[in-house]
Amino acid sequence: MKHFTSVHDVGDVHELVALAAQMKAQPRAWESVGKGRSLGLFFFNSSLRTRLSTQRAALNLGMEVTVMDASGGWQLELEDGVVMDGNAAEHIREAAGVLGRYFDLLGVRMFAGLHDRQADYEEHVLRRFLELTGKPVISLESATRHPLQSLADLLTIAQHKAIALPKIVLTWAPHPRALPQAVANSFAEWVLAAGYPLTIAQPEGFELAPQFTEGATLAYDQGEALRGAHFVYVKNWSAYHKYGLTAPQHTDWMITPEKMALTANGKLMHCLPVRRNVVVHEAVLDSAASLVLEQAENRIYAAQAVLYQLLKTL
Amino acid sequence: MKHFTSVHDVGDVHELVALAAQMKAQPRAWESVGKGRSLGLFFFNSSLRTRLSTQRAALNLGMEVTVMDASGGWQLELEDGVVMDGNAAEHIREAAGVLGRYFDLLGVRMFAGLHDRQADYEEHVLRRFLELTGKPVISLESATRHPLQSLADLLTIAQHKAIALPKIVLTWAPHPRALPQAVANSFAEWVLAAGYPLTIAQPEGFELAPQFTEGATLAYDQGEALRGAHFVYVKNWSAYHKYGLTAPQHTDWMITPEKMALTANGKLMHCLPVRRNVVVHEAVLDSAASLVLEQAENRIYAAQAVLYQLLKTL
Amino acid sequence: MKHFTSVHDVGDVHELVALAAQMKAQPRAWESVGKGRSLGLFFFNSSLRTRLSTQRAALNLGMEVTVMDASGGWQLELEDGVVMDGNAAEHIREAAGVLGRYFDLLGVRMFAGLHDRQADYEEHVLRRFLELTGKPVISLESATRHPLQSLADLLTIAQHKAIALPKIVLTWAPHPRALPQAVANSFAEWVLAAGYPLTIAQPEGFELAPQFTEGATLAYDQGEALRGAHFVYVKNWSAYHKYGLTAPQHTDWMITPEKMALTANGKLMHCLPVRRNVVVHEAVLDSAASLVLEQAENRIYAAQAVLYQLLKTL
Repeated sequence: MKHFTSVHDVGDVHELVALAAQMKAQPRAWESVGKGRSLGLFFFNSSLRTRLSTQRAALNLGMEVTVMDASGGWQLELEDGVVMDGNAAEHIREAAGVLGRYFDLLGVRMFAGLHDRQADYEEHVLRRFLELTGKPVISLESATRHPLQSLADLLTIAQHKAIALPKIVLTWAPHPRALPQAVANSFAEWVLAAGYPLTIAQPEGFELAPQFTEGATLAYDQGEALRGAHFVYVKNWSAYHKYGLTAPQHTDWMITPEKMALTANGKLMHCLPVRRNVVVHEAVLDSAASLVLEQAENRIYAAQAVLYQLLKTL
Repeated sequence: MKHFTSVHDVGDVHELVALAAQMKAQPRAWESVGKGRSLGLFFFNSSLRTRLSTQRAALNLGMEVTVMDASGGWQLELEDGVVMDGNAAEHIREAAGVLGRYFDLLGVRMFAGLHDRQADYEEHVLRRFLELTGKPVISLESATRHPLQSLADLLTIAQHKAIALPKIVLTWAPHPRALPQAVANSFAEWVLAAGYPLTIAQPEGFELAPQFTEGATLAYDQGEALRGAHFVYVKNWSAYHKYGLTAPQHTDWMITPEKMALTANGKLMHCLPVRRNVVVHEAVLDSAASLVLEQAENRIYAAQAVLYQLLKTL
Repeated sequence: MKHFTSVHDVGDVHELVALAAQMKAQPRAWESVGKGRSLGLFFFNSSLRTRLSTQRAALNLGMEVTVMDASGGWQLELEDGVVMDGNAAEHIREAAGVLGRYFDLLGVRMFAGLHDRQADYEEHVLRRFLELTGKPVISLESATRHPLQSLADLLTIAQHKAIALPKIVLTWAPHPRALPQAVANSFAEWVLAAGYPLTIAQPEGFELAPQFTEGATLAYDQGEALRGAHFVYVKNWSAYHKYGLTAPQHTDWMITPEKMALTANGKLMHCLPVRRNVVVHEAVLDSAASLVLEQAENRIYAAQAVLYQLLKTL
């Protein structure tokens, strides 16, 4: 593994999940692996879980970790050939080049802008970091994927599944704002790469990009899809086809206790933050079916497994 | 001590002060106590001294410390049953639950809103952290108390008092903005718990909540109160009774050299930041009578004693 | 060396450059020198390279480092005698006094305001930190100088010069905003202190303050100045004489491949961030002549040499 930006960077998904489980069992057992090694984390968007869990992971491995919030004023010019007389004071060529000289490993978060689908799906910003830093790069959520979240989700599923191939349902839910497709895209591709059967339920027009969902069953009747589910992964995303469109009026897509009753004693999953009584009814979140806090905790061990693998390449 | 939110969490106040004095004498003598232990500090309001001194304390004990500024955009929903379709993207149930899974010890700061006295005095936010994190919690100043400041203040008094029971005067002073009562409440309850005589001087209508001042002498004539004082603790607070009311027009309540001359060679104390020539005349702050910088320094050792006690419970 | 605020704090410039080169050759060879020592970095203006490189340097020496961003709300009152009933909640006397009690070494950044030349050139803020903290202070760029940058620049020159006394040209370039003179002032005084010949090219009216340029050759014809240059240091600065005036209309002062062709296979230097195609044409920045990333990397070792020297004084 040279970088960690998607499931395609990973050799054997199940081996990486198993490594994360080992990290969880003994978080401090590898605390000298990262000694004298530095990790720089750059957030062009706000973060709670990713920021804190990746720091915890790095410290568990004995690394030095530096966090930089660039969500405020730091505007980067991304295009070549531009006369930079506007707001952007720095070009990504210099910024990424410098960061590559300051750290052994780099993490970067930049969400989709949701205005230009092609630019988002070509991962303009992440690609430049990969090209320009000369160092292993970890995606802390890019325009189209959130692989640390997906790895934590697979660890959670692995530790809660009662049968080899549980029924996993990824369902769209309403939200007042337009959100990227990254978490949903990424969850789909990791689940499918792991060989689990996946059903994706969404309203008409909210189908994810086909390259992420090949092999999944698409469903438009949420109740039907939930029947017999062992894991219900709920998430809002804005439309891929009518790019960035949202649909908060579909309030009947909220996950409720009644809907959970359709499942096979299914577990609820969500990446957080979650808007209670909009995306999921609070009675579900506060029930024993909810795995959301454990998913968040598993972010530590997902990051720790990834850092461990990348440290080996240095 | 399971948490540190008020003097009521502390067994013997004098023992804790003595422990802080030991920490001050040998800051690095316990540097392996916290090895491999993590402290997360969450600031919903800005901070200079609390942030830096608590970090110093944790590092002196060998802990890993992470600071998160939530004073910007991170709006938490506090109420249950709310349909979260507004500005708050996360509920305190998830936020506190996640933080409890990321750190061994947690510190949290959230000031009084000064709009709803009952909510402030019931410590809604702090209580949720205590209930939901499952970890020892340190108040970094809550709606009604600032116990790390008070412990540092008692250490300062202990190291400067010439007699067993010095006369301590807590006096209101003017300020252009409405400030919480937390520092004053907390100082009063710690001084009284330590068994020192306390006089509290304030204009009519600025009496603190009675539960914090039982056993203190209330005075409305500042000059009379200051007579013979060994320690003058000056602080502005907004009204408890007409909740949140302020009174910057009482400029005659500023502490001046003339007023200090009424004391028994009294020392000046303030928690900082202090507005010069509004709360205290600069000639007093720049005189040998001022202990304000030492109070600020003692914040390190107060925090270090508290962290040490909480680490023992893990 | 008691502080590090200008080249005048340094004994032998070449010795300090040589120490920085040693640090670069073996960054971790002194990792126990700073053990148990703390560095506090205070940024009243934004920072990428200074912040990250100084942190890296401190960690390479085993120090504990804390960064505080004061670029947001933290307004300090600088003047004595003021009635502080405005926006500033804290006076620099208390702020600097407290910081001095929290850290072994302090770094502070505050740029020129560009409104009051006398205040800027008297270094009001930096001076107060020097007077009030009681600890060694490192300038992270002050109103008139950026000595960590200059030391990194001299290291870069030392490692790339082919002859003992290369021709160094500092040239003004256009920029849409009014920038301080600090980088240019500082580069000039360090180059001159090192005994290198220096030519400074600028449009009429953009001469630097004479106290920084004594011994340099001033030129008003940029092409003529660049002829035979071994190092071309390009930088915008606003006017010193008509204080703060800028001149973005001088677009013909941009450094282009054609201008670099006039040099003796000269190297391009810039402190970054750089506005491409405004200050320097991108073809120059992307050519082998550019040393800008190496300068940025050398910031680590410049800071490391300075910290090492200051740690010896504790």
